[in-house]
Amino acid sequence: MSGERRPVVDLTDEQARRALPLKWGTVPRDVIPAWVAEMDYALDPVVLEAVQRALADGITGYPLFGHDPALAEAYAGWADRHFGWAPEPEAVIPVVDVTAGVRVAIDVFSGPGGVVFPTPGYNAQLGLASITGRDEVRLEVPASAERAEIDLDRLDRMFAEGAQTLLLTQPHNPWGRVFTRAELEGIRDVVVRHGARVVSDEIHAPLALPGVEHVSYLAIEGTHDHAVAVVAASKAFNTAGLRCAQLVVPDAASRRLLADQPMARNDSHSPLGAIAARTAYAEGDPWLASLVERLDQQRALLGDLLATHLPLVRMRPVEATYLAWLDASAYGHDDAAAVALERGRVKVSPGESYAPGTTGHVRLNFATSPERLTEVVERLARAWA
Amino acid sequence: MSGERRPVVDLTDEQARRALPLKWGTVPRDVIPAWVAEMDYALDPVVLEAVQRALADGITGYPLFGHDPALAEAYAGWADRHFGWAPEPEAVIPVVDVTAGVRVAIDVFSGPGGVVFPTPGYNAQLGLASITGRDEVRLEVPASAERAEIDLDRLDRMFAEGAQTLLLTQPHNPWGRVFTRAELEGIRDVVVRHGARVVSDEIHAPLALPGVEHVSYLAIEGTHDHAVAVVAASKAFNTAGLRCAQLVVPDAASRRLLADQPMARNDSHSPLGAIAARTAYAEGDPWLASLVERLDQQRALLGDLLATHLPLVRMRPVEATYLAWLDASAYGHDDAAAVALERGRVKVSPGESYAPGTTGHVRLNFATSPERLTEVVERLARAWA
Ligand SMILES: Cc1ncc(COP(=O)(O)O)c(C=O)c1O
Ligand SMILES: Cc1ncc(COP(=O)(O)O)c(C=O)c1O
Repeated sequence: MSGERRPVVDLTDEQARRALPLKWGTVPRDVIPAWVAEMDYALDPVVLEAVQRALADGITGYPLFGHDPALAEAYAGWADRHFGWAPEPEAVIPVVDVTAGVRVAIDVFSGPGGVVFPTPGYNAQLGLASITGRDEVRLEVPASAERAEIDLDRLDRMFAEGAQTLLLTQPHNPWGRVFTRAELEGIRDVVVRHGARVVSDEIHAPLALPGVEHVSYLAIEGTHDHAVAVVAASKAFNTAGLRCAQLVVPDAASRRLLADQPMARNDSHSPLGAIAARTAYAEGDPWLASLVERLDQQRALLGDLLATHLPLVRMRPVEATYLAWLDASAYGHDDAAAVALERGRVKVSPGESYAPGTTGHVRLNFATSPERLTEVVERLARAWA
Repeated sequence: MSGERRPVVDLTDEQARRALPLKWGTVPRDVIPAWVAEMDYALDPVVLEAVQRALADGITGYPLFGHDPALAEAYAGWADRHFGWAPEPEAVIPVVDVTAGVRVAIDVFSGPGGVVFPTPGYNAQLGLASITGRDEVRLEVPASAERAEIDLDRLDRMFAEGAQTLLLTQPHNPWGRVFTRAELEGIRDVVVRHGARVVSDEIHAPLALPGVEHVSYLAIEGTHDHAVAVVAASKAFNTAGLRCAQLVVPDAASRRLLADQPMARNDSHSPLGAIAARTAYAEGDPWLASLVERLDQQRALLGDLLATHLPLVRMRPVEATYLAWLDASAYGHDDAAAVALERGRVKVSPGESYAPGTTGHVRLNFATSPERLTEVVERLARAWA
């Protein structure tokens, strides 16, 4: 990965408004959007060109369902280079997106008991358990905790009381944590003791920032009989709209069970998304290295800006992702996100959407230019302080 | 629609192999693929250019979830022009594909009772009821029936015995039927008598061929309180891989219920698919007119070819779609599709996938060039006769 590099290019406001219809297109022009998890950067040109070539060839029809050998090989190669552990290519199965992959994994592999969901947790997966017909068992990390961790005793109790699945987010959004090998082994021990299952959402794995190392839950010994991971290039390469994530199912019997499902369970990824993912995994390293470097700088800048302008905001260390979970309660606003929008003209994500009740918290997306991030924090300071 | 036209352009074998990785890419080179429902034609250049422009703008992130005004307006305009009935734009909700739209409609709106699924029926929806946790109640049209129709007495009995939803396919695949207004009114009367619901899959509506008129189930009086339709431009414009269909929910209270679902129920369409659909609805008429003319010619050619080479094959009139449901039982093969592949080097879809037991039937895709269709039927004749 050293040597050759492709730079990260910032989008202008005009470009961002065109490229990101949800993030930028749904806010008034005087508002800076720092909410939904998309980056204000141009696509990696190598990924873009691959998709453009596919489109010029007219590849707008059905993809290879069930198994896409080129994509699977590319993912295995990537995982090996970046994480030092890779599944066999047969284990890699395309799905339309990560959340759909989590859903299908629970639907097909989990018992009917509850799904433990650590909160604050990714908003689109809050309530996911209920649509699989299972109880959602929230394992809340108290806002006061020194370090955001999964409390193994509580996890143990939840399984003892009937929960059968843990929905793990590794790295975690919005905690920004990367769980260590030791933590993952601790989780595994509790899971194994109860014969429970794990679905590990690892969409943020490519965004582990300098200082930590991403370990897949599947890289932990003794996990393959009870766990799957859901991975994607889409978050790191800003291609969520191209619609392809990957389910990693290391157990061959589980793969057969999945293949025997009615087609409607999993027939909706896009061939353009598969090509984007394959290209990102096979050829994206020189761009990703620049991205991680930039996000590392943005993270440092955010820390400095908060220390200067909003010293009472509490931010736990961001080990991965470009999303900071900020506790602004000390400034005493009932709804910190609403105040940020109304007075500061900054759209951040309300804490409420990640854990009911956390209205003093917001999630701030720092994947933008240093100038915009500076302006964002200055506006938040005027709004909150 | 008269006057201006854009022609339908046939793909060469080489082009088709690149453009259609599932249909063409998974069969040996000496096999002619006439199976999965994709057309061997180049895309409408106006739709392709719109998607290319969007990609050049970097629109690879999240789309507008829940409601996309431009898409909704375009669909309403299209429906009005083509079918003489249109929903209000607010009723049009993007979903990732038609089958996902059917699933979400059943999940959210239907009671827990069984889902009536007329068979032979679209293979990817066979078994769909089971993944919603409901029984699939198959209403089989006997192979001997003069005309493929939904038997209202049997439908009535199925509802009386506890089924609560009819999954209607209008126009029907693989029957090729377009149900008449009178037939739809008959269905409605039975449904209303039992307080049941209808999900109407109308993906093939743009492909109603000369001689019939498509009537949406929602255009029938007294259906809005119990029915939704799922529509798409993707089948007529060969863009299934761009991932956007539309759920039409005419009842405002139902729309609120849908909007209140956890995000994971319906957050996975692509912005490129939405742009393709919007463009097809708003600007696709001059291309679609040529397509329908071509399919009409192919249908006539298929009739002639069968009469000459395979007189014992029974084909009911194809009123819509480019899919012919052929009863080849008279030739006495245990598995007509397997014989077609092995001896004839033609891949057709086995009857078995549309209705268990119909191994003497195949579904033949005639959306190709006249030359290929001629070769296909000649090969089938050598294989079967
Ligand atoms: C933990 C997590 N999973 C999944 C996603 C979204 O992935 P998808 O759109 O593929 O479901 C996100 C988006 O930010 C996320 O943070
Ligand atoms: C009746 C019917 N519904 C749906 C589809 C496929 O649509 P989608 O891929 O949008 O689910 C087809 C494809 O041929 C079909 O025939």
